[in-house]
Amino acid sequence: MNSSLLCDSIRVAIGLALALGFTQSLAKEQLNFVIIFTDDQGYGDMSCNGHPTIHTPHLDRMAFEGQKWTQFYSSAPVCTSSRAALMTGRLPVRSGMASSKRVVLFPDSAGGLPQSEITIAEVLKGVGYKTAMVGKWHMGHLPRHLPTTQGFDSYYGIPYSNDMDRDPFVKGNWVMIGKTSPWSIYKVPLLQNEKEIERPVNQKTITRRYTQQAVKFIKNNKEKPFFLYLAHSMPHIPLYSSKKFEGKSLNGIYGDVIEEIDWSVGQVLNTLRKQKLHRKTIVLFTSDNGPWEVFETHGGSAGLLRGAKGGTREGGMREPAIFWGPGNVKPGVIREMGSTLDVLPTFASLSGAESPSDRAIDGYDLSGVLLNRGKSPRKEMYFFGGAQLSAVRSGSYKAQFREEYGINPKPLDKPELYHLGEDPSEKYDLAAEHPEIVERLAKLGEKLQASVKPVPDQLVPRIAN
Amino acid sequence: MNSSLLCDSIRVAIGLALALGFTQSLAKEQLNFVIIFTDDQGYGDMSCNGHPTIHTPHLDRMAFEGQKWTQFYSSAPVCTSSRAALMTGRLPVRSGMASSKRVVLFPDSAGGLPQSEITIAEVLKGVGYKTAMVGKWHMGHLPRHLPTTQGFDSYYGIPYSNDMDRDPFVKGNWVMIGKTSPWSIYKVPLLQNEKEIERPVNQKTITRRYTQQAVKFIKNNKEKPFFLYLAHSMPHIPLYSSKKFEGKSLNGIYGDVIEEIDWSVGQVLNTLRKQKLHRKTIVLFTSDNGPWEVFETHGGSAGLLRGAKGGTREGGMREPAIFWGPGNVKPGVIREMGSTLDVLPTFASLSGAESPSDRAIDGYDLSGVLLNRGKSPRKEMYFFGGAQLSAVRSGSYKAQFREEYGINPKPLDKPELYHLGEDPSEKYDLAAEHPEIVERLAKLGEKLQASVKPVPDQLVPRIAN
Repeated sequence: MNSSLLCDSIRVAIGLALALGFTQSLAKEQLNFVIIFTDDQGYGDMSCNGHPTIHTPHLDRMAFEGQKWTQFYSSAPVCTSSRAALMTGRLPVRSGMASSKRVVLFPDSAGGLPQSEITIAEVLKGVGYKTAMVGKWHMGHLPRHLPTTQGFDSYYGIPYSNDMDRDPFVKGNWVMIGKTSPWSIYKVPLLQNEKEIERPVNQKTITRRYTQQAVKFIKNNKEKPFFLYLAHSMPHIPLYSSKKFEGKSLNGIYGDVIEEIDWSVGQVLNTLRKQKLHRKTIVLFTSDNGPWEVFETHGGSAGLLRGAKGGTREGGMREPAIFWGPGNVKPGVIREMGSTLDVLPTFASLSGAESPSDRAIDGYDLSGVLLNRGKSPRKEMYFFGGAQLSAVRSGSYKAQFREEYGINPKPLDKPELYHLGEDPSEKYDLAAEHPEIVERLAKLGEKLQASVKPVPDQLVPRIAN
Repeated sequence: MNSSLLCDSIRVAIGLALALGFTQSLAKEQLNFVIIFTDDQGYGDMSCNGHPTIHTPHLDRMAFEGQKWTQFYSSAPVCTSSRAALMTGRLPVRSGMASSKRVVLFPDSAGGLPQSEITIAEVLKGVGYKTAMVGKWHMGHLPRHLPTTQGFDSYYGIPYSNDMDRDPFVKGNWVMIGKTSPWSIYKVPLLQNEKEIERPVNQKTITRRYTQQAVKFIKNNKEKPFFLYLAHSMPHIPLYSSKKFEGKSLNGIYGDVIEEIDWSVGQVLNTLRKQKLHRKTIVLFTSDNGPWEVFETHGGSAGLLRGAKGGTREGGMREPAIFWGPGNVKPGVIREMGSTLDVLPTFASLSGAESPSDRAIDGYDLSGVLLNRGKSPRKEMYFFGGAQLSAVRSGSYKAQFREEYGINPKPLDKPELYHLGEDPSEKYDLAAEHPEIVERLAKLGEKLQASVKPVPDQLVPRIAN
């Protein structure tokens, strides 16, 4: 055996040992996953993202111990579409969960996330995970669409938004009603698995009750790998907090609500610590879309970002985002790009599962960033208003092709171009200076759109009367 | 001796012991003070205040280990006035350092901070501190006004702004020149004590050289209590960084400059740690006023705050602010109100010195907040455009009485009122809803103005040709 062959053999042996070791450590210590997903919380609504009057000590600590991502996107500026993307790793236009005819699913909707879609829960269940969903679903409320049909072993929560099922006798200005009414006018059901257990749900205690359910699930599953999807109904209007948080924040009721969510985050992380699961669990905290600005002080803040919920400027889709996992997630502020689309491929990769290979997946595996602070494989982002591609980001540049708001936004007379690194607030249009970049981004957009196969629009069908 | 008397005696004894112990510990371990003061850095220009593309790991760590204040004000939206207030604990209208005729001091100015004013350096020198100033002074550049006449044992820096002394042959658009010219067109001198040692100062290396001077001062003074005032010339335009930081930030040159300042903060804190001074030093990091918006991507970001440099909305005067002092400063995010006006009384209190008692002092002693996270004694804030009182804050309410910008702003047709707790971005005017609060704040303003004695305007006099 010559020395070169010897070296090769050693290299192979080391490689094998590493590979085996890796597989074994995965088999031994399969990581748990928790997603804490809030509703309409803006990029700026955490102290560690600069909010001056909302107190978020648990999120701040989570951010300092973990990775705070500053360029992390939801994949739609509205609820239903955003959640479908998180669950599937696919742009919501691919599953029919984005529409230019209706903004989200409503209590009269017959559609939902198709059974043909593969969710994170299904992927992880396939490699032995116990799965639970707690909170707001909003991907179809008929029995055939509920979480328990989509890979979750159990479900506790509300099937759509907390401002739906409003008492038809309550009339008046939409915003004023949303800001001042008691929860009892919203006849939203609380479900346990498929069963209605309370209607209308008492929204004052909902954050606390979700938290109790989440903590119970973690405690009951400490021996096996688990996936918990905790999707708070708050801070979507109408806003309510439990007594303990009422009037406590300097920021008014919106702050009270975020501070209760922050408390909830603390409960989850402390439970993981107490159960000695913190070193084998990865927790992601993020939000479904930007703040609902029309509700004024009942809506949050996108911080320095332009735009809000429903829009395809940064404030509509860039989210507060923290990955936490002591010993696994390498701490730091991450300025790489990421998206809720990437959660499925990332968790699949970390758990030893496979991402679906029979369909287009729009997400990337971010595990190299989480574990080693490597470069993100995500280099582009697509922004849809309804089912219309409205803006494209590639690297630091973002071109805006359609109007900011609406589910069927019109093309702009002239596309705009922003450098999001130097100009994170999208103030200085560079389109005239760099038409070649606008062109390049337009082509990326065309290519993406060409890859989308037509599917039935899930948001349009209504339940037959 | 009855039991009540016994209790009283014990109480007195304990009180005495505590008082003596406190005095002794002060005598033994007089705290050092460092102020790191930046120029035109906005509230949003740190990662821990939500900036997505400027990397500030040292400031983030400083904030997490110390107190990040989210409602901390400079006391003017422009340079000269702001610095005079920091140095004296007095509103700049009291010292003649705010003017409605000229915005700041210029190279042709004859005025400066009057010798009758008492600076932090003088206060601390009085109780045995070694004092040094490094960086931009801007409180008078004639020998009679330099730092060495105001209580500083030594000085190394530039006497006014880095965009002054511009070559008169360079013509063109002011903003374009500021964004694109080499440093050599600004004939700004670098002084050592009173002596000019370089002209024009090489601005590319200035942040690094300030840092070296600061580190040297700390190392040379580890045996005695010291006060170091490190006032960076950056990120005031024109922006330059040293080679090591050029093109490194995702945020362009503005980010490069902040990242070099962040590096500098790390150098200072690490020097304190290495010299084992960190547990007997309190460091304050803050800025003189809001970002200079007219310079677009060469200006910073006020984050979610409205307004910018030169204005009396929050973005003009609310600053990034961190107090750090392991073992002394109790960590946390502080949502209490504070101001650069409070630095003199606070450092005086912590060092066992007296604040001047023969004149109006507008600052409060914040040591109870720093050491114990108590309530801030500051309950109000006054916002001057030039020498005109333009806005008044009391508690969470802020009334705007004059136009936002300018040094002689006109009264608004109707005063505006904002609740800064619920509406930190000053979006929702409540004046019509709460005229009684506007009235109350107007009266506070009148009372304040009545307390200001007329003094010579220091910004107007020119050097005789």
